[in-house]
This record gives sequence, C-alpha cells and structure tokens, in this order.
Amino acid sequence: MPMDRQKIIIDTDPGQDDAIAIMLALASPQIELLGLIAATGNVPVTQTAENACKILELAQRPDIKVYKGCPRPMRRPPINAQHVHGQTGMDGPTLPTPKHQPEAQHGVSFLLETLANHPEHSITLVTIGPMTNLATALIQAPDVVKRLKQVVAMGGAWSETGNISPAAEFNAFADPDAAAIVLNSGLPVTLVPLDVTHSFLITTDRLQALSALSGTCARAAYEMLTFSSRFDLEKYGWSGAPLHDPCTIGWLLAPQLFTGRNVNVEVEVASPLTLGATVVDWWNVTNRPINAHFLRTVDADQLWALILDGLSRLP
Amino acid sequence: MPMDRQKIIIDTDPGQDDAIAIMLALASPQIELLGLIAATGNVPVTQTAENACKILELAQRPDIKVYKGCPRPMRRPPINAQHVHGQTGMDGPTLPTPKHQPEAQHGVSFLLETLANHPEHSITLVTIGPMTNLATALIQAPDVVKRLKQVVAMGGAWSETGNISPAAEFNAFADPDAAAIVLNSGLPVTLVPLDVTHSFLITTDRLQALSALSGTCARAAYEMLTFSSRFDLEKYGWSGAPLHDPCTIGWLLAPQLFTGRNVNVEVEVASPLTLGATVVDWWNVTNRPINAHFLRTVDADQLWALILDGLSRLP
Amino acid sequence: MPMDRQKIIIDTDPGQDDAIAIMLALASPQIELLGLIAATGNVPVTQTAENACKILELAQRPDIKVYKGCPRPMRRPPINAQHVHGQTGMDGPTLPTPKHQPEAQHGVSFLLETLANHPEHSITLVTIGPMTNLATALIQAPDVVKRLKQVVAMGGAWSETGNISPAAEFNAFADPDAAAIVLNSGLPVTLVPLDVTHSFLITTDRLQALSALSGTCARAAYEMLTFSSRFDLEKYGWSGAPLHDPCTIGWLLAPQLFTGRNVNVEVEVASPLTLGATVVDWWNVTNRPINAHFLRTVDADQLWALILDGLSRLP
Amino acid sequence: MPMDRQKIIIDTDPGQDDAIAIMLALASPQIELLGLIAATGNVPVTQTAENACKILELAQRPDIKVYKGCPRPMRRPPINAQHVHGQTGMDGPTLPTPKHQPEAQHGVSFLLETLANHPEHSITLVTIGPMTNLATALIQAPDVVKRLKQVVAMGGAWSETGNISPAAEFNAFADPDAAAIVLNSGLPVTLVPLDVTHSFLITTDRLQALSALSGTCARAAYEMLTFSSRFDLEKYGWSGAPLHDPCTIGWLLAPQLFTGRNVNVEVEVASPLTLGATVVDWWNVTNRPINAHFLRTVDADQLWALILDGLSRLP
Ligand SMILES: [Ca+2]
Ligand SMILES: [Ca+2]
Ligand SMILES: [Ca+2]
Ligand SMILES: [Ca+2]
Repeated sequence: MPMDRQKIIIDTDPGQDDAIAIMLALASPQIELLGLIAATGNVPVTQTAENACKILELAQRPDIKVYKGCPRPMRRPPINAQHVHGQTGMDGPTLPTPKHQPEAQHGVSFLLETLANHPEHSITLVTIGPMTNLATALIQAPDVVKRLKQVVAMGGAWSETGNISPAAEFNAFADPDAAAIVLNSGLPVTLVPLDVTHSFLITTDRLQALSALSGTCARAAYEMLTFSSRFDLEKYGWSGAPLHDPCTIGWLLAPQLFTGRNVNVEVEVASPLTLGATVVDWWNVTNRPINAHFLRTVDADQLWALILDGLSRLP
Repeated sequence: MPMDRQKIIIDTDPGQDDAIAIMLALASPQIELLGLIAATGNVPVTQTAENACKILELAQRPDIKVYKGCPRPMRRPPINAQHVHGQTGMDGPTLPTPKHQPEAQHGVSFLLETLANHPEHSITLVTIGPMTNLATALIQAPDVVKRLKQVVAMGGAWSETGNISPAAEFNAFADPDAAAIVLNSGLPVTLVPLDVTHSFLITTDRLQALSALSGTCARAAYEMLTFSSRFDLEKYGWSGAPLHDPCTIGWLLAPQLFTGRNVNVEVEVASPLTLGATVVDWWNVTNRPINAHFLRTVDADQLWALILDGLSRLP
Repeated sequence: MPMDRQKIIIDTDPGQDDAIAIMLALASPQIELLGLIAATGNVPVTQTAENACKILELAQRPDIKVYKGCPRPMRRPPINAQHVHGQTGMDGPTLPTPKHQPEAQHGVSFLLETLANHPEHSITLVTIGPMTNLATALIQAPDVVKRLKQVVAMGGAWSETGNISPAAEFNAFADPDAAAIVLNSGLPVTLVPLDVTHSFLITTDRLQALSALSGTCARAAYEMLTFSSRFDLEKYGWSGAPLHDPCTIGWLLAPQLFTGRNVNVEVEVASPLTLGATVVDWWNVTNRPINAHFLRTVDADQLWALILDGLSRLP
Repeated sequence: MPMDRQKIIIDTDPGQDDAIAIMLALASPQIELLGLIAATGNVPVTQTAENACKILELAQRPDIKVYKGCPRPMRRPPINAQHVHGQTGMDGPTLPTPKHQPEAQHGVSFLLETLANHPEHSITLVTIGPMTNLATALIQAPDVVKRLKQVVAMGGAWSETGNISPAAEFNAFADPDAAAIVLNSGLPVTLVPLDVTHSFLITTDRLQALSALSGTCARAAYEMLTFSSRFDLEKYGWSGAPLHDPCTIGWLLAPQLFTGRNVNVEVEVASPLTLGATVVDWWNVTNRPINAHFLRTVDADQLWALILDGLSRLP
C-alpha cells in the first residue's frame, strides 16, 4: 500500500455501475474518498443523491458525505436513462430508505470549498456522470484548474461512436457543454470512453464469480448488474453487458492495465445530429492541442479481478 | 415616494453607461439597492468590480457592497469593448483608487444567499452586462426563478440588429448561452434592446444640460459620456451617442415612458455568423411561447429629464 | 428611350407580385425580356410555370418562352406561401388555362445556353423567387459569374428582419443555400430586401388608381393585389400591403428612386433558429468583403407611378 | 458470365485507387461501362478528367467517353488530397498525355441524358469521389431517383470515424451537402465506408503479386499503388495501405465477399467540427428511416484475387 493515499471526490449519478465504482473506491486503501457529489444524469439529482446515500449505508460508511449538485444540465433539457437503469436509476436489489441523508451544502459549493482548503494539485475529481458540476465550478472559479490534480472521467467514445445516440455517449450527450468546458479548461483529463468500457463485459462467468462473494455489498452489486445488464445484452447481443464507471477507479488503482494516447478531444455542442460527439484526433491529423489522455484498451480479466477483490473486502 | 421601495440587485460591467444607471438607482428613493455584482463584460471582472467601487465612492455610499461574479463567459472566450469604453472600461474622469473594496464572497453566492434570505418574488435583478452570473445561478439552483420578482436586462436587438456584430448586441453576444438560459428559464424578463437605446441619444444639448449640474457625480457622468460618445458618434454619424444601461432603471422608475410587446425571444447560440442574435417574434409568426417583455420605444426627453433630476440629487 | 435595351431573364415563382413585375418588364421598351424561368417557391414549379404562361397570355406575348427550373430547393424540403398567395399561388382573377405552354428544355439548361450564346456581361438575371436555379447553374458552370452582367434579386432583410420567420424573408428562407452560393459567387448582386418593399405599400388610394386603368392586364393586376393584400393587411395592420417583386424591375428602370449601400451580406445556412437570415454589415463592423448592393429606401410614389404607367400600356 | 451485364456509369476523381476501380470494371465482362464522369475531388476536375482519359488509353478503350462534371463542391471551397495522391492526383507511373479527350458535354448533362435514354432502374451509378454531380442532377431532376437502379458509393465511415479529419472521410467531407442530398433522396445507396476499406490493405505480399503481372495496366497499377501507399503507411503504421475505391466494383461483382447492414446514415452538414461525418445508426437507437446498405467487412484475400484476376486480363 502506498504511503500517500489518493484524495478523490466522486461526482456521480448512481447508476448500478456508479455503485460498483464507489464500492471499489471505498474498498481501496490507496484511495481516500473526500465526498460524493450527486449529479443529474441517469435520473434526477434528488434520486442520485439518495442512491449515493444507499451505497454508503450498504458499505457502512456514514462518515462520507453526499452533496447534491446541479439539478439540470447547463443548456439542454435533462435526459435520463431509466430504460437502462430502472425507475430508481439503481434498480436490482431492494434497498431500504437510507438514514444517511445528503448535506444541505450544494455540491458545487462543496467542491470549491474543499479545493480551497487543500493544497494545489492534491485532489483528483472522478466524474462518472455528466460533468455539469465541474463545469459550473469552472465558470465561477477558473482557478479550479490549478487546484485540482486531475480529472478522471467516464465519458465519450471514439471507434465505439455512441450509445445514447449513434454519435454520442450518454454522459457527454447529457451535458455536452459541460464536457466541452472541462476539456477546454486546461485541466489534466483522463477519459475512459466506450472504447474501453465496451471491452469490459460482465459475462456470465464474471457475474457468477461475483455471486459467489459473501457480503452485503457484493450481493447488492450482483443484483444490480443482473438488472442493468439486461438492456445492453438485448441491444448488442454480446456475451456480456459493458461495465462503464468502475473503469475510472480501476485506472486510478492500476493504470498499467490500460493503454491510451494523449490526444485532442473536442465535443460537438452545436449540431443536433452529432450533439455530444467526442471528436478524437487519434491519428493526429489536425493541429489542435492535446487536452486529454484518452484510454483505448483495458485488461478486462485483471480489472475484474481487482473489482472482485475490492468487493470481497467490503461488508 | 411609494411606500414599497423596489429591492434591486444590479449585475453590471461598468461601463460609463452602467455608471449612470447605478447613479440613477442610488438617487431614486423608490429603489433600494441591495448590492452590486460585477460582471465580465466591457472589461475583466476585476476591473468592473473596481469601477463599481469607484462609482459607490463618488456617490458616498460605502454601505453598498460589491461582489465579483464569474470571471469568464460560460462557453465562449471573453470579448471586451475597450474600443468603446477605454482602457479601464470607464474612461473619462480621473477617479482615485477607491477605498471601497469588493467583498470576498462570490457574486453568484451573494445572489443565491440574498434570494434565500428574502421572500419569494421580492427582488428585481437588473442586468446591464452579460448575464453569466444569473445563468450560473440558475444552473445551480433553478428555484431562482421563483425567488426573483423579475429580471430587467439591457441586451438584444430587433430592428437595430446588432452593434458588436452585424447580428448581435454586445451583452447578448458576450455570453449568448447565458442569455439563452435566462430567457428559457421561465423568469419574467423585460428586455431593453438597442431598439430602445438607439433612440435615446446623448445629443449636444443633453450633454450640455448635464454639464450644467454641480456635484461630483454629475461631473463624472459628464466626463464619462463625453468620452464614451466618441466611438458611436464616429460610427453612426448620428446627432448623439446612444445611452444604453440607464434605460433599465428608467423603466423601473417610469415604465409609462416606454412601449413594448410581450413576445418570444430566442438567442442564437450555435452559428458563428449569427451568434448572440436575439430572434424576436414581433409579428407572432411562430408558435413559440411568450418569454419576454420586449421594449421598443422610449420618450427620450422625459427619460433624460429623469436622469438629470436623479444626478442633481447626488453628491 | 435608351438605344441599348437591357437584356434580362426573369427567374420567378408567380406570385401576384411576380405578375406585376413581369408585366412591368413587358411594358418597358428599355427592357428586352429573353425568357422566364419558373422557380419553386410560393407554389410548386409546375404551377409557377403555368402562372408565368398565364401572365404572358394576358399580355399577348406568345413569343416569350417559359422554362421550368428546379422542382425543389437545394437541401431543404420545399416550403410554400399558399397562405399568402392562394391555392394557385396567383389567386385573384379567374384566368383561363393558357395555350402558352412551358418549353421542354430545363430552366437551368436555358440559362446556361443563353449565357453561352451572348457576349460576356450582357445579360441581367432578375430573381424574384428562391435562387435555386442560378445556384445550380453556378455549381455546374462557375463561369456564369463572368457571363452574367448582374443579378437583381428580391430577397433578404436587414432592419425588417423577416416575414416567413422572425429572422428570414421568404425567398432567402426557401433556399438559403442557393442565396448563399449566389452571394459568395463574385457576381454583382443588387438585393431588394424587405427594408425597401415594406415601405412600398399598396394603399387604398394606390389600389384605386390601378382599378381606374382599362386593359386586361391592369384589371388582372388589380384583382391579384386585392387578393394578396389581405394577408399582410391583417398581419401588420399597416395602411397597405407591401409590393415586393416589382421593385426589382423598378430599380432597373429608375435606380434614382432608390438608395442603398455596398455592403457585405452573408446568409445563415446552418442554424434552424436563424435559417435564411441575411446578415447585413450595414455599419461595416466586420472585415468581410463587399458582395452586394443592398437597397434601403424607395420613393414609393414615383415607383407606383412608374408601374401604373407601365400597366396602362399593356393590353 | 451472366447474360445481363450490369450497366454502370462511374463518377470518379482519379486517384490511384480510382484507376484500379476503373480497370477492374473494364476487365469485367459482367459490367458494361457506359461512361466516366470526372469529379472534383483529389485534384481539380480538369486534372481528374485527364487522368480518366489516361486510364482508358492504358486499357485501350477509346470507345468509352469521359465527361467533365462540376468544377466545385456545392457550398464549400474545394479541398484536395495532393498530399496523398501527388501533384497529378494519380502519381506513380509516367503516363503520356492522352490522345483521348473529354467530351464537350457536361457530366451532369450526360448523366441526365443517359438516364432519360434508358429504361427506369437499369443503370447503376458508382461514385468513387465526392458526390457533387449526382446531387446537382437530383436538384434539377428529382426523377433521377426512379431512373437509376442504384448508387454504389465509396464514402463515409462508422467505427473508423475519418481520415481527412478526425470525424470525416474524404469524399463525404469534400462535399458533405452532396452526400446528404443523395442519402436523403430515396435512392437505393450502398455505402463502402472506411470500415471496409481499412481492412483491405495492400500489404507487401499483395503488392508483390501485382508486380508479377505482365501488361501495361497492371504495371501502371503497381506503380500507382507503390506511390499512393506511402502516405498511409507512414500515418497508420499498418502492414499495408488501404485500397478504397475498387471495393465498390468488387461489391458489384461479388457481393458475397462483403457483410453489411441496412441502416440510417445521416451526414453532418452544419457544424465545422464534425463536418462530413456520416452518422450511422448501426444499433438502431433512433427512429430514422433506413436509407443505406452500409458495408462493414470484406474478405480481403478474395477481393484481392478478384482484382489481380481482372488486371491480368487487361492489356
Ligand atoms: Ca454514471
Ligand atoms: Ca453595461
Ligand atoms: Ca416572387
Ligand atoms: Ca476516388
């Protein structure tokens, strides 16, 4: 275990895969989770905040606080993904109403205050939902760029092109303006796109290995993934549904399992047809500046082993 | 004097015409000015905040606080208007560095807190610069819509089409996304467009009447308008330069001097050619919902009399 | 009467006002009308071609040929203006089915062939409908630019902003891509925009003067204008309906009745909100090249006298 | 050999890969080549027409005529690809100035006339350059849709995203409006995108097999591919450069070597960032109508064998 734990904040719209990502972070001694910001994404922020509380309660971590972020995207009407994630956004297990409640402080305010109270470049922000909160913070206080260490974001696509639309991935599409603001901010951004997550499939074998774990968290994770897999299995006809958000924490813990390239990524914000498309200059055919580390492959077996190992250590 | 003074906050990027607007508000017993938020517009926010402080010092109002707002537009690179307003954004008089200093609290935070501490629908926000601060507040806390009484904004154009570009007025162009967010928010918005302000010209006669007033504020106002008129006089070849921002306070004080129409106004945010254009459905040829009271004419003589009267009451 | 008659082709989508324009051309000894190209505009091209034939029959000019042009705009679905012009696009008088029939040759082919058979810079193209035919010719054969003398086009708007939408005039909106291609072609273009035609109103007095003329053409013109005025009178509440297309022929005959400015005009082709807007750099605030002579005012009384005089000379 | 030879017209901007495609068509008894239309693409149309003549001269086919098409894209400034194809657009072999000369008739006119002189649905148009000519024909005469049997077009990309830009393939990017017009026309279109051609690589082995063929055509083809491969080999670092255009003729000859899907494909025409992107609804996540057969894979070995076999039969 490294001496310096990575301080992170997770901005999240749980989401079954968000839940696994949060659990993995909680299970990892290399990571110090400073708080959760609830985002508007798969479902409205009131629901994602409640879901975040449920996860913390499952993991018996009442010490970690949840802050509700912006209840809407910057410029677009909210979309949701209940067709994938179910009514609560985190369907699968039956979880009690949590005692854990979100704080009164706004998520953007929490982010700005936390950054102000820590040394520059000491905190990693992990966004596994639309990036509205970070973008709003950047508009108010551009020095967020130098206060954050880095951003690790699930979002975007290159060869996999899109899921919510033919041209765009859900998180980028749900608030493309926010994604564009973040990518143009000068922040060091690592993107975990569909190109990675579509090769990290929860096959029957992997699901079975999860089901063999004891513990409340592992059990809930199993039930969540069983539920959320159904949509993608039918859509793609693959051997398993992709598992998106945990790849971010996986990269923080074991970057050697991933390959990627430093490239320019721009987000389409103007055209309805391609709204939210992440245009990746993988072959370096433009003169646009490098603004992202864009991940491309993952060692799925080892990442899954890492997740199982993490979940096995939780209550 | 009415029993109920109108509580207002002014969001401003002074600006010589902003200065006159603020002075008019300070001079008017019908208005209670709760604070000034400095916007990024004619010049950067650090400078507009200092300019706001200078105005308050001229008017001997150390009780009114200045809060710096967002230092950048939402999605666009900042533009400025130093070609019109001079290096400081408020050139003309030589004003000492003010003792009055901006608060540490952020302008958006001040706005949200002030609204939370007052009854619903009790505060009018007057924006006389780009609308970044209000839009950012709306993204974080959409209930700003029901907490504000109304917005009165200098911005946009119909028949006068534009000034900073052939298609757009400066405030709308400088942050078109913010203007679009405000107009789509459901807030009651009164727009004071170029159609009004281009018929409110500071002719030689009017300028002379101002120069006849004693008082530090009137003197500074005279020197400001003398400076800022030069650009428009050369550009348009009119008998006087338009005076934009004071029309907002003028409308609050004497709406009977104005005519307008309840219409739909949309802001172009996608196309570079028409960026920031306010598309006004004056002839009701679409089915778009009414979202603005769009002013069209002003009784220039009476409005100028109102301003002179106000300035004559200030120190 | 000048020795050199102006050779013109009229590209038209009659349209009551197109009919008056064509009649005025036929009545003018200074003008030699080489042919009519029917455009898709107010109604489909089959109908506008028939309408063109009807006008020629009224004027007893079987020698002038009608060619059907493109039956669709370049990229947009066709729109029409039957709400203004009636079912036939030229409602009002009851006109018999004409013996005059359109030629088999395509309008674009006629245009290209006629230009090839005349000296360079000898023919004026007058477009009083969407500019699809000219734009299509330009794509196929860019040397149309040097073969034409000039283009005189009814279309666009500056201060009057639009009629079919809040931001666009009908002809520019119906095929904005064509308008943009023409304006970027290097052709000398004179634009007759709504700014002119909205000040050329067919008041009751003017209509009465027309009704006093004998002659089949004048009678039909009176009935057409009586019909077509109804829509605009109700919409605008003005003292008369604007008369658009004859202003083009009027300018050819008597340019001294008009004022205008050489400016840059760009057409919005990308954004749905402002589609077809003609962005006029009247105040020269950009560095864009001058590409149009944009008319701004007309002496309405004298232009009307010119039209009455013309109609009085027709059968 | 089938009794009914497929009647085709090739619209082409040679282009080394165009040359191989044309040679393959000439070598195939199943195909009757009615003529070549030169397109503006890799180089200007005057040059592509001369290149087309050179290919016909190499193949000793003076009976086949070449028609120059539109010398410019519809709305965009021309781009070229001399960085790939060399100064002449078909660098590699030293070919004499051809005796074969393009016809005087315009390519669009040839297309319209040929379609009018053949039964409906009897001619296949193969486009292996930007689609300006077909789109211009469609604007003038929409019944081209029912006169053509089908269009087979090299162009677009799904997972391979782009080559000339990060988001767009060259032919689609060079005239995106034309591509959009064709795809929205109702014509049966088979697209051969980068997804196919990037898996059809001219490896050293394949190039060597070509060099072993005798014959003037095969020799020229070898020298062309040796030249044109250099750019892509350096860019991609693959084992061979992709061979684009011959895949269209390959599909006509042996569709069983390809797999694909009937999908909706839309072309981005509005946003500079994604201009020319072909948005492919591969996973059927929208309700857009099917308008293309989009090829996805090819049996590269067998297609190469087909080409070698063809070239071996030419002079
Ligand atoms: Ca998520
Ligand atoms: Ca201002
Ligand atoms: Ca017309
Ligand atoms: Ca080609």
